[in-house]
Amino acid sequence: MTSNDASAKPPLGVHSEVGRLRKVLVCSPGLAHRRLTPTNSDDLLFDDVMWVENAQRDHADFVNKLTQRGVEVVELHNLLSETMAIPEARAWLLDRKITANEVGLGLIDDTRAFLDSVAPRELAEYLIGGLSTTDLPEEFRSGYVALAREGTGAREYLMPPLPNTLYTRDTTCWLYGGVTLNPLYWPARHGETLLMKAIYTFHPDYKDATVWWGDPERDWGQATFEGGDIMPVGNGVVLMGMSERTSRQAITQVAASLFRGGAAERVVVAGMPKLRSAMHLDTVFTFADRDIVTLYPKIMDSVHTFTLRPGEGATGVDITDEGATPFVDVVAKSLGLSKLQVIETGGDVYASERQQWDSGNNAVALEPGVVFTYDRNTQTNTLLRKAGVEVVTIVGAELGRGRGGGHCMTCPLIRDAVEF
Amino acid sequence: MTSNDASAKPPLGVHSEVGRLRKVLVCSPGLAHRRLTPTNSDDLLFDDVMWVENAQRDHADFVNKLTQRGVEVVELHNLLSETMAIPEARAWLLDRKITANEVGLGLIDDTRAFLDSVAPRELAEYLIGGLSTTDLPEEFRSGYVALAREGTGAREYLMPPLPNTLYTRDTTCWLYGGVTLNPLYWPARHGETLLMKAIYTFHPDYKDATVWWGDPERDWGQATFEGGDIMPVGNGVVLMGMSERTSRQAITQVAASLFRGGAAERVVVAGMPKLRSAMHLDTVFTFADRDIVTLYPKIMDSVHTFTLRPGEGATGVDITDEGATPFVDVVAKSLGLSKLQVIETGGDVYASERQQWDSGNNAVALEPGVVFTYDRNTQTNTLLRKAGVEVVTIVGAELGRGRGGGHCMTCPLIRDAVEF
Amino acid sequence: MTSNDASAKPPLGVHSEVGRLRKVLVCSPGLAHRRLTPTNSDDLLFDDVMWVENAQRDHADFVNKLTQRGVEVVELHNLLSETMAIPEARAWLLDRKITANEVGLGLIDDTRAFLDSVAPRELAEYLIGGLSTTDLPEEFRSGYVALAREGTGAREYLMPPLPNTLYTRDTTCWLYGGVTLNPLYWPARHGETLLMKAIYTFHPDYKDATVWWGDPERDWGQATFEGGDIMPVGNGVVLMGMSERTSRQAITQVAASLFRGGAAERVVVAGMPKLRSAMHLDTVFTFADRDIVTLYPKIMDSVHTFTLRPGEGATGVDITDEGATPFVDVVAKSLGLSKLQVIETGGDVYASERQQWDSGNNAVALEPGVVFTYDRNTQTNTLLRKAGVEVVTIVGAELGRGRGGGHCMTCPLIRDAVEF
Amino acid sequence: MTSNDASAKPPLGVHSEVGRLRKVLVCSPGLAHRRLTPTNSDDLLFDDVMWVENAQRDHADFVNKLTQRGVEVVELHNLLSETMAIPEARAWLLDRKITANEVGLGLIDDTRAFLDSVAPRELAEYLIGGLSTTDLPEEFRSGYVALAREGTGAREYLMPPLPNTLYTRDTTCWLYGGVTLNPLYWPARHGETLLMKAIYTFHPDYKDATVWWGDPERDWGQATFEGGDIMPVGNGVVLMGMSERTSRQAITQVAASLFRGGAAERVVVAGMPKLRSAMHLDTVFTFADRDIVTLYPKIMDSVHTFTLRPGEGATGVDITDEGATPFVDVVAKSLGLSKLQVIETGGDVYASERQQWDSGNNAVALEPGVVFTYDRNTQTNTLLRKAGVEVVTIVGAELGRGRGGGHCMTCPLIRDAVEF
Repeated sequence: MTSNDASAKPPLGVHSEVGRLRKVLVCSPGLAHRRLTPTNSDDLLFDDVMWVENAQRDHADFVNKLTQRGVEVVELHNLLSETMAIPEARAWLLDRKITANEVGLGLIDDTRAFLDSVAPRELAEYLIGGLSTTDLPEEFRSGYVALAREGTGAREYLMPPLPNTLYTRDTTCWLYGGVTLNPLYWPARHGETLLMKAIYTFHPDYKDATVWWGDPERDWGQATFEGGDIMPVGNGVVLMGMSERTSRQAITQVAASLFRGGAAERVVVAGMPKLRSAMHLDTVFTFADRDIVTLYPKIMDSVHTFTLRPGEGATGVDITDEGATPFVDVVAKSLGLSKLQVIETGGDVYASERQQWDSGNNAVALEPGVVFTYDRNTQTNTLLRKAGVEVVTIVGAELGRGRGGGHCMTCPLIRDAVEF
Repeated sequence: MTSNDASAKPPLGVHSEVGRLRKVLVCSPGLAHRRLTPTNSDDLLFDDVMWVENAQRDHADFVNKLTQRGVEVVELHNLLSETMAIPEARAWLLDRKITANEVGLGLIDDTRAFLDSVAPRELAEYLIGGLSTTDLPEEFRSGYVALAREGTGAREYLMPPLPNTLYTRDTTCWLYGGVTLNPLYWPARHGETLLMKAIYTFHPDYKDATVWWGDPERDWGQATFEGGDIMPVGNGVVLMGMSERTSRQAITQVAASLFRGGAAERVVVAGMPKLRSAMHLDTVFTFADRDIVTLYPKIMDSVHTFTLRPGEGATGVDITDEGATPFVDVVAKSLGLSKLQVIETGGDVYASERQQWDSGNNAVALEPGVVFTYDRNTQTNTLLRKAGVEVVTIVGAELGRGRGGGHCMTCPLIRDAVEF
Repeated sequence: MTSNDASAKPPLGVHSEVGRLRKVLVCSPGLAHRRLTPTNSDDLLFDDVMWVENAQRDHADFVNKLTQRGVEVVELHNLLSETMAIPEARAWLLDRKITANEVGLGLIDDTRAFLDSVAPRELAEYLIGGLSTTDLPEEFRSGYVALAREGTGAREYLMPPLPNTLYTRDTTCWLYGGVTLNPLYWPARHGETLLMKAIYTFHPDYKDATVWWGDPERDWGQATFEGGDIMPVGNGVVLMGMSERTSRQAITQVAASLFRGGAAERVVVAGMPKLRSAMHLDTVFTFADRDIVTLYPKIMDSVHTFTLRPGEGATGVDITDEGATPFVDVVAKSLGLSKLQVIETGGDVYASERQQWDSGNNAVALEPGVVFTYDRNTQTNTLLRKAGVEVVTIVGAELGRGRGGGHCMTCPLIRDAVEF
Repeated sequence: MTSNDASAKPPLGVHSEVGRLRKVLVCSPGLAHRRLTPTNSDDLLFDDVMWVENAQRDHADFVNKLTQRGVEVVELHNLLSETMAIPEARAWLLDRKITANEVGLGLIDDTRAFLDSVAPRELAEYLIGGLSTTDLPEEFRSGYVALAREGTGAREYLMPPLPNTLYTRDTTCWLYGGVTLNPLYWPARHGETLLMKAIYTFHPDYKDATVWWGDPERDWGQATFEGGDIMPVGNGVVLMGMSERTSRQAITQVAASLFRGGAAERVVVAGMPKLRSAMHLDTVFTFADRDIVTLYPKIMDSVHTFTLRPGEGATGVDITDEGATPFVDVVAKSLGLSKLQVIETGGDVYASERQQWDSGNNAVALEPGVVFTYDRNTQTNTLLRKAGVEVVTIVGAELGRGRGGGHCMTCPLIRDAVEF
């Protein structure tokens, strides 16, 4: 980068939840979702199978709306294709994927030879979509293939399908000026982070990023961390849901790293009940404007809140138990606001439970007061609109079946700060 | 209608699976589906919650396509409203619904008074959609309501919601010139048949129907019977799936009744594996033309076939174990055909499993060679089209979430015979 | 029996939870439990399979301890054998069991002929243990048997096994001077009550009993009632758990009947959370002495209490919502006690959860201050002993696997009142 | 070994499945099983909670019977205590257990200080039994503990409980003259292998062992391997079940290692259906004598067999697909036997399903023709006895609730070869 080209590319960084979204990473539905069947969908964390063509259409429409409103959208298959066009990146990744532990002794050479023979785009498809033994062309099939029995189960693969890449939010998080490469909770998602490391190691646009924490080549034990729980809300504050999927072991490490790097001064932890319907903080709580949030009260009322701040001790992290103070109030105070306006999930007792389930509270902001949500949560959308929020809808009939909405499907790469 | 216009209304009767469909009973999505939540949907036999407005739109489009092609479509809410406009019918039905056993002592008078105060249409809505304690207006709420705790569970109702009325196929079956009033397998559906009895007892268009078997006011024990398993294919033959939901205790009784009434000469029984994915015969096997069927081979290959014929003995039914002869061959022979052309669920191992799950084999014929199926099963639809079948599609994004397609959602009332 | 020998048999009647137990109905493990397999045990409401021989040994030891302490123990197989030795009783019961709805057309005559050929004892075994198609001797097997496919599933029977008869507490309840014949919640138990009706209709020792409520030949809809929820504690009071299995529809009807009959003056209703671990009130709350109860606080703390009393209105039942008053305090007051001494499930957070699960709070009293419990709940047993209660243990390794203890396995027929 | 060094200790090594058992590793039930509750047992792979005191009694009786018959029994708590008495071993293990990823930042120093303060025996108890936050004495509790919320769930630990150490068979396998340190399938068991590595690294009796394969400090990906699937039957043959838990990725690596080391000449792979009831080969197939096996035919009939032999190629492993040849025949031939005598699970269709479930086929041999099995599988035990096998019984009421029998609970350390 030369000094007279400073304007060319603004640096990656996410400085709020609702500031102007300038660049975002998404991942289109594809081969991985064609692998989903009633038999394997549970293991792959989907509640139902998907009509992939329609999911692709609805996702393309979402991307188009983002683009038309001035957001630069980066698609993961494309990004990975570009990365795989770099010979060292391809070698680095395949050295780690095509091993005796993954594909099995006797299948390494053939599998590697086949993958080395395909174009970057096709390779990226298999890396995300999975490589089954039946995908190997005849000339690459040895007797060892017999041992790998064919089926539609989740485990019969040379490389597993990664359908949850659809939810790019979780795998990496930009927190102010740096990124985390997250160790994810469920085994079905472990493969995602290595793909991202390849990108952040080799791709020219990403390789200089500051990494706060995380490395898919290390074992993180109980320290699991998913972006759906993490919100860099601005004012030096990060919200972190302590949930089924994001553990205190990870939260305290990331907090320490952020404090050390001077990137944040406060982490507000939402101690959540461990329920599938509330798997991440962003399934029950998101921002719609600088001082407006939408939330599902049944879950949020039982959250126990802690605040982490830089400390003197060895850990560098001090903990305050916020006791009976509601999470929303702790968050407001941390942002210097007197209060946050709360839009609850809409409708009667039936409708609100259904809309939370259908990602009704999973809004993602384009800029302050402009959000994307699923079309199907009409009652919550109406309440947001009545509060003056502009709501742009995404068709959720297929995309929502893995229990994730617009917030889950977007990993902001560049987002402006907001004033508080 | 004048007396010399007796021909105006052809008599009810279903004489084949693919002959000209002239009149059909359907049920629009509505209040019952607004009651579905993630918590209660399993108990109510739905895999997921529904966007009711869109389900209604898609159902209306299906009805419209049927109407435009000349089918007279009867909608259950309408039919029940007409029936509830008959004072004796209303009294008969409420006497049976608003009892100490159903609404609870102390709530009978108020509930009855409220329901007696509403118009027939609103009453029909509650009868199908359920009546929760919160639906009772203030002036009808006594202290007894306290005991009926509020919630979104499947049991907290004065009258339970009946979302599976969407699948009108199951509750009653026209078999040639008469009908059955079926005892359904799951408790969540038991209430459906009583509504149909009210119609077949009081509504002028239906009250003269011949009833082969079944009465919701009697306890049928292990004898359960669901229309999704039953196909009056013509030539005096009825196919019956012996499944999780349709038992041999019912099959033999209905066969005996049909034989006694001279309505059928042969019942071909498909002994099916007991699986949720193959709950009814029509989820894995339907007719697309007089000699074309679409089926899911993984399940159909394990069917064990029996033939029932009129017998001399006390039961009036003789049984032949067809041994290793494939079901499709027994069916072809029973129809006097040399063979049936088989269209299997399309696509690779993943796609075929997903399409069967998404009701890909659940076609319903408008006339020979013209069928309705869900749009999402594109590969199976293509195979049907290549075989010369005209395929009209129904939007399945919402309607399909209870695991039923066009065949399940239609109860033919008048269908012509076909020649074999 | 002569008229001047009226003293020979004291009348049946249960006048407290802890007064002297004089006569009790139990049911030994047997054929029904030999039918339990890992495949069908869920449907039959058992968590695991049982070693039947050892369960029989442990049950015999329990019976022996009861007998040695002066209790007259009636065993259900014996009682049913005596009843089946009465020709009219046998005919009455088989007319209702061997029907087209239950065994299937074509199998009625053979099945009836076989059962008419066996001795009363063997008939009782099949009535409780179930009759599979393979139990039919060769000479009673016609071609119709082919249709009833063999397997270990819960439904492939001519008469279903009734393993939950082990828990005699649930099927009938003596409440002061009369009995209820209960409509049970789960289909797997529906067959139990008909056996009891045969006994209460024909057996000389039982046929004159006053029946407060219930009749297995009628359909009770949502009105389900199980003895594990019901406790005639004395002083004209009956406790009733309103649970998954005992509904308000039944509770109010039984209360009205008791009030009408002058048998009780107050019913205290425990509105319970609907959880498998707290399926009945007696799984979390029983009496150990006239003023000592053992309970599991985690569940009991969330109970909402109501009191029913005789009323002037049409229903004859008035309802008081006890609001925030703890259940235990309402019960104490209803008995005229200033307070009840509470023994909680013993041990740390792990142990107390495990002991409740293992029926640790499911004590049954022999007389005030003397109870039977399972041996395995050593910590709760110790707490009871420290409170001065004599604890006699039952071996629970096998018997407890259906989640029921001593209270569940006993249906008191004669129990004295206690003074308060 | 020279005659004047009789005490020298014969070398570790397992040369058959039925030769004289000389030394064996077991693990007594204890603290880990006291942690089991109805809430967490599924996550910890147990079907039910256990009465720990009785499980300990029954396990002690098993150990006593082994000892009395001349087997040297090593108990894991003891072995780990001895290892933890070695300062470098203690430091090595705690360095790996008490990390930010496992206990969480801010709890490391206190937790380590506490564990450093306890005696080796107590440390071993916590390493196997788990360390909950409530176990930390007051003086070691800082504010960070608040973040680790208390509960009985499977994840709220500073060190997780490892109740499946009871099944020592799985974690390490002696295959002829060397051992494997297995990567186990379920996350709940991952911690077991590190304990074994500490022993095999530092304990004087074990530290010189040859390790064929495996290292808990490395990530093995899809290569998972559990001893319940592995049998060094002698004659240079090893049987390996390819199951839910033991993958082809591991099997081929271990085979290659054994071939390279000259330890085996043939691996016979049983390709098993993936079912919980058949989680390991030894749950459906074990040896009772040199030419007698006991097996569960329903599962074994669907096994597909492969043979691996040393090969010339890069992998060093050649594969033969045995096609339709039954597994038992392939095994017999590999041992040079004309045939194996097969004792099937005993009893009717119900009893055999139940006995397989209750570990009826999970025999472990003391010497040829002498086996230990659970007492409860009386019918299978009788069949074994009729075949001339001496059957010594273990009380299975509590021990069997994690679905493992005598074979699972024993890890042979020294076993003689047998002649074929």
